[in-house]
Formats: sequence, structure tokens, C-alpha cells
Amino acid sequence: MPEPIRTRDDAVAADAADPLGYVRARFHLPEHGVYLDGNSLGALPVAVSAALEDTVDRQWGRDLITSWNANGWWTLPARVGDRIGALVGAAAGQIMCGDSTTIQLFQAVVALARLNPQRRVIVTDGDNFPTDQYIAGSAARLLGMQLVRVHPAELAQVLDANVALVSFSAVDYRTGTLWDAAAVTAQVHAAGALMLWDLAHAAGALPFELDSIGADAAVGCSYKYLNGGPGAPAWIYLAGRHHPLIDLPLTGWQGHVAPFDLAPGYAPAPGIERARIGTPPVLSMRALDAALDVFDGVAMSDVRAKSLALTELVIRYADAALPAVEVVTPREPHRRGSQVALRMPFAYEVTQALIARGVIGDFRAPDLLRLGFAPLYLTYQQVWDAMDTLHDVLAKEEWRNPAYAQRAAVT
Amino acid sequence: MPEPIRTRDDAVAADAADPLGYVRARFHLPEHGVYLDGNSLGALPVAVSAALEDTVDRQWGRDLITSWNANGWWTLPARVGDRIGALVGAAAGQIMCGDSTTIQLFQAVVALARLNPQRRVIVTDGDNFPTDQYIAGSAARLLGMQLVRVHPAELAQVLDANVALVSFSAVDYRTGTLWDAAAVTAQVHAAGALMLWDLAHAAGALPFELDSIGADAAVGCSYKYLNGGPGAPAWIYLAGRHHPLIDLPLTGWQGHVAPFDLAPGYAPAPGIERARIGTPPVLSMRALDAALDVFDGVAMSDVRAKSLALTELVIRYADAALPAVEVVTPREPHRRGSQVALRMPFAYEVTQALIARGVIGDFRAPDLLRLGFAPLYLTYQQVWDAMDTLHDVLAKEEWRNPAYAQRAAVT
Repeated sequence: MPEPIRTRDDAVAADAADPLGYVRARFHLPEHGVYLDGNSLGALPVAVSAALEDTVDRQWGRDLITSWNANGWWTLPARVGDRIGALVGAAAGQIMCGDSTTIQLFQAVVALARLNPQRRVIVTDGDNFPTDQYIAGSAARLLGMQLVRVHPAELAQVLDANVALVSFSAVDYRTGTLWDAAAVTAQVHAAGALMLWDLAHAAGALPFELDSIGADAAVGCSYKYLNGGPGAPAWIYLAGRHHPLIDLPLTGWQGHVAPFDLAPGYAPAPGIERARIGTPPVLSMRALDAALDVFDGVAMSDVRAKSLALTELVIRYADAALPAVEVVTPREPHRRGSQVALRMPFAYEVTQALIARGVIGDFRAPDLLRLGFAPLYLTYQQVWDAMDTLHDVLAKEEWRNPAYAQRAAVT
Repeated sequence: MPEPIRTRDDAVAADAADPLGYVRARFHLPEHGVYLDGNSLGALPVAVSAALEDTVDRQWGRDLITSWNANGWWTLPARVGDRIGALVGAAAGQIMCGDSTTIQLFQAVVALARLNPQRRVIVTDGDNFPTDQYIAGSAARLLGMQLVRVHPAELAQVLDANVALVSFSAVDYRTGTLWDAAAVTAQVHAAGALMLWDLAHAAGALPFELDSIGADAAVGCSYKYLNGGPGAPAWIYLAGRHHPLIDLPLTGWQGHVAPFDLAPGYAPAPGIERARIGTPPVLSMRALDAALDVFDGVAMSDVRAKSLALTELVIRYADAALPAVEVVTPREPHRRGSQVALRMPFAYEVTQALIARGVIGDFRAPDLLRLGFAPLYLTYQQVWDAMDTLHDVLAKEEWRNPAYAQRAAVT
């Protein structure tokens, strides 16, 4: 482990020694301020604009319908899926890109439930992201199953012979807690159940090993640490060993074994191609494809090391200099994702005061300031300065400004 | 009715008198050739490039996460939905834009089935687009219902007191047959069932009156006659009178009554907002939003009149000069969408020979050459010349070239 960063000079020195320092130039970043919301919407990679311009002007405008073959639109979802697979430990041919995380969750929950049809319980985390819980509930209702909510640490209490599948997020979206995915997956398998991981807050932020931990299915979004742009298409991982029996509910024509036969009855394509649904959003997906270039030559171990150093900086700073703030995120590195959640009074107003000072984080009800750390484009110095700004906002009680109490449509 | 076009000179004169002639300049079109596949992928509107550049560079790159409020990303799906509503006869607040047609079909079928829970049959058209049939089948399976296929003309044979809903396409994607949507909807309602229309081949090509015919739900894609780009987000119409009881299966967080409370249990938003699912593909949706500008000031009655004149030109030409070709599309204007399907031997090879000559149509198995006519950017002269080319290809047997028999991945 490197020395912890205790001063601004330490931060400057860490930047000078940063093996990922060169990657920052692969992004278009705002001139001013510190962006600590890359866990909500990743910054804009430089390569996106040219890729989109080419997709629109040449591929759509000139080549029109022929682009499905001539410019590889038909194969794009699987190609992008494989690129994401390389970042989350999935061998090629097991990830399909498309649709939203909500849709992919529905696909994965129903598919795993149908692989384990004698069992009638779906387990999720009561602190899981709302969509994960809502979709598990909707799928349970449609399948005549029961939904049980449990904190991942207490999984053993509910994991009996009636559990078909367990659906957890690898990183808790509020607290930033990173679960031991290998241990949880093994625990689930030992009970005869199947394991679905939501990697929304893990993919691109830390190494993950879907294949080697034996995950049965996974989903993720692409607009956080994968920097694919607002509403970038999501993805689904279905372990290759299950492919022949995977029975998905959203049976679009593109997942058919012979889509251009236009047959009236559905028969799934072999392999991960059956996870295609309708026509993919080519423009958004081409943006994501280009965005993934920022990972070229980047070792996820370097990403993880910098992420931990940044979050450790924040936690140490808060412990040392922000007495009114409680660090909610685990202090143990192996239990921490790439974010820090700070509990404090008037967290909403503090978040707004920080934004007014150019430090962009977000608020999570009821009392959390959530700061995300994207190692590819943040500097140690920026993060140090952001903490100095937070110190200032609290010391000067800037959050008392009534303007900061007004709620926006999207918080 | 205007005089039919019987010669190339007639076509040139029709262009000179075309009230929609000025709209063609709102598109970037290929310099050469005739594009008769706008019913598969609409041409590129000029406004798209600048809108996307602004969305990427300024909104995403500079404003980042604040764009959800500051640049209206949060309200975009409903705003685009209302713009589409203006083209299909839906008052504001009943259409939500997002996801793919496949996904919206699943939402609509399940929602209508749940509105009519005592009835256990879903009816669709055995000639409907495959996705419509596959999704109806998947929904029936999940809901424990039965799927019945019937040709729309024979609906009365199956429409009994056990039918919950009927799902038809307004225009048959192969033959181009336009159904009498008002009459079918009335027939379905008289039997106590609910009506779902797929407007994939209608929206933007002809006037449609969802509200006044009393449709219960509708879906459509946006990349055909709405010119939204490859894989542009689809849309769902849910009649306002049903909103309080609409119970959708794909329960994403954005459709929640209070999405930022991040509550563990799902409760739908009021009105059409409950048809939001996950995070929308903002880049693709901004492209669609800009694309819809081509309809500014355009009367759908003018669109329809030109569409009928173009398809009549093709039918008359085929009848007069192409003896080996059978016109499959209805000759009666009120029964015709905006395409013409021509049955002929070696239709696949003929389609390829035409493409090689710059006339882009598509093949639909087993024996149809399908030509689509987008009235906003086609000229009468182009269509005449395309028919001359087809005449040539058939007369000179150009389709015998063995290169044209090779099948591409996407046909």
C-alpha cells in the first residue's frame, strides 16, 4: 500500500506519480470545478463526438439501411458486450448490450427463476436500488413467486431450499459497501440457488470476475464508470453454461434463431444472441462503443488502486477535520466501492452549497452526501480541494442560504 | 383526386406542383439513387447533427449531471411523446417515449390484460410482425392466458366474451394493407375487449386518430416514417381514461410516484409518467426530438395525399408494364398504407439487383419486393425512375447475376 495522503502536497505528489495520469486527456472535462458524480453520469470521452458524427452523417445519412451490414450495426450489441465483458471478467460471448438496466434485470430475474422452477422465492436486498427491488417484485408477481428482502450480511437467515435466486448489487448505491461477491455466490450455490449481480456501481470502477466467481447472471448500466453517456444502453451477462436452457420473457424478433425468416412462433437464437430484444439504439450504442476506448491499455488493478487511494483520502480528511460528518462507507478497503457516503445534518443543502462552489456530488435521502470517484479522470489534488471546499461550506455554514433548500425536479 | 401519373412528364409536373416539395430540403439525402426503404429506416433530417453535437458537447460534456434539470433531460420522454401524439391523434399526456417497440408491446399487452382480468384470451394477427406475436405469446404465458391468431378480416370468428384484448398492426408490414382502425376498434369494444394498435408503419406516414377512434393503447417505433435514426426510442400510448388503473409490468424507478424518495416498494406515478421505465437513451432521444422538426407546419393530409399518389404511380406502372409482377398491396386507397409489395419470382435477387442500381428497397420472405414511400423526401420523378430501373432489371434479367443470390446477415 502507498503512503496515505495527509496534505495537499501529498496530493500533488500523488498526481505526479499517478500511473493513470495520462488517461485524463482522453476526456473532455469542464474547465472549472471538481466532478464527483461520475458514479451517476460519467464524463465525456473525447472519442465520442467524432464517432457519433460519423455514425450520423456517413452511416445513417449516406449508407442508410445498408449500414446494418456494411457498418456492422447488426453485430454492434454483441461486440460492445464483449468489450464490457473484458472489464468485468467475462469471456466473450456471454454479454449482450442493449436496453436499460431495468429491462435487463427483468430478463435476468425471470430467466434464473425459470432455470430453478421447483423453488418459489426470489431474494433481494431491502437496501438495493429501487429498480432492482421493483423488478424483482414484478417478476415474482408474474411468476407466482414470493419476494423476500434481506440485507446481504444476513443472507443465511433466509437462504433455504425454496430460494430460486438471489439478486444483489455488488456495491451498495448509497453506502458504497462492496460485498464479497465470490463468497456470496458460493453461499448461494451451496444452497442450490442461482446468483444475479447488478454491477451498476462496479463495472469500470473495480476489477470484477464474473466467470471465475461462477455468477449465473449479471446486469449493469453503462453511463456511470463506463462513461457511455446519458441513458447509455445497459447490458446483461448470462453464464455460458446456462445458455441452452435460458428462457427469456422479452422475446423480440432480434433474439430469434432466424430473425429474417419472420416466423410467427418464437424460437431463441443459440448462445448470447438470444438476449437481443428489439432494434438497439444505435446512436447511443455507438457513443458507448467509442467511450470504451478510454480503457484501452488501462489495467483495472491500477484503477482499483487509485480509487482506493482517493476514497481513503476523503475518509481520512473527514475523520480528521469534519467532526459533524459521519463516514458511512466502510473503512476497510476490501469492503469499499469507488464512492464515499457522508452522513450529516442538512445534507441536501450542503450538496447544493457544494454545487454552487463547483463541487458536484449528489444527495441521497434522507441525510447522505454521496461522492463518487472516477479514477480515470480525477486528480488527487482536485479531490483534496473538494474536501477543503466541503470544510469551508460547513465551517462558514454556507448551507444556511435559503436558496439551497429549494428542491429541483431531479435531486 | 388529382390525375394519375402515367408518364415521366406527369411525374415531373407533379413534383412542380407538390405542396410538400419544400420539405425535402429538411433532409440530408444521398446524392444518387432512390431510397425506397424509409419504412425500415427513415432518412437523416438536417437538424439532427447540430442537436446531437449540442447534446454531447455542451449538455453532457460541460453540464454533466445537472443536465437532467438544466437541459430538460428529465422531461424529454414526455415532451417527445406529446410531439408524436400530435401526429397520431393523441392529446397531450398520453404518450411516453422510450425503449424499443418490443418493450412497449410487452407493457401494453400486460396492462390491457390486467384491465380485463376476467377474460383469458389475447388475440393477435398471424401475419403481424413477429415481435408482436412473440410478445403476445410471452405475455400470455406469464399471465396464464391463451394466445389466438386470426387475420383481422376474420376477427368476428374469434371475438367472444373471453377475449381480453386484440393486438393488431394498423398497416401490415408485408402487404401494406391498412385496416379500418375505427371499425375494428368499435368491433372489439362491442365485444367487451380492449384494442391495442401497433403504428410502426402508420405513424408519420398517414393521419391516425387514436383518441377519436377510442383506442385503448398503442405503440410505435420512431425510426421509420418518423425518421428518428437507427434504433430510435419507441413510444407507448395509454388512453387517459385508463390511467388510474394502468398496471404495468416493467416497474422501473423512473415510473415511481416519487422516484427520488428511492422507496423499496413500487407505487406508480399518476398519468402517463407511470409509463417511464429506466433511464432513457438521451442521445438517441435528442436525435429523434430534432428529427421531428421536419413535421413542423406539415399537414398530415398532404402527407397522405402524396403517399397515395406515389403508391398509385407504382401500382399503375406495375400493372401496365411489369407482367411478371403481382401487386400484393390493396389497390383501394383507403386500404393502403405507404408501401407497395410486389410479388415476383426471384424477389431476393431482384432486390439485390435494384440495390446495385441504386434503388434501395427490401426483400420480405418468401417472394416480396417491398418498396416504402416516404412522402416528405421522395419526388415523383425519383419514383418513376425507380420503376424504370425495375423494368430494366426484369427485362434484361439482371437478377440472374450470381452475386445477387448471396445472402447477407441482415436481409
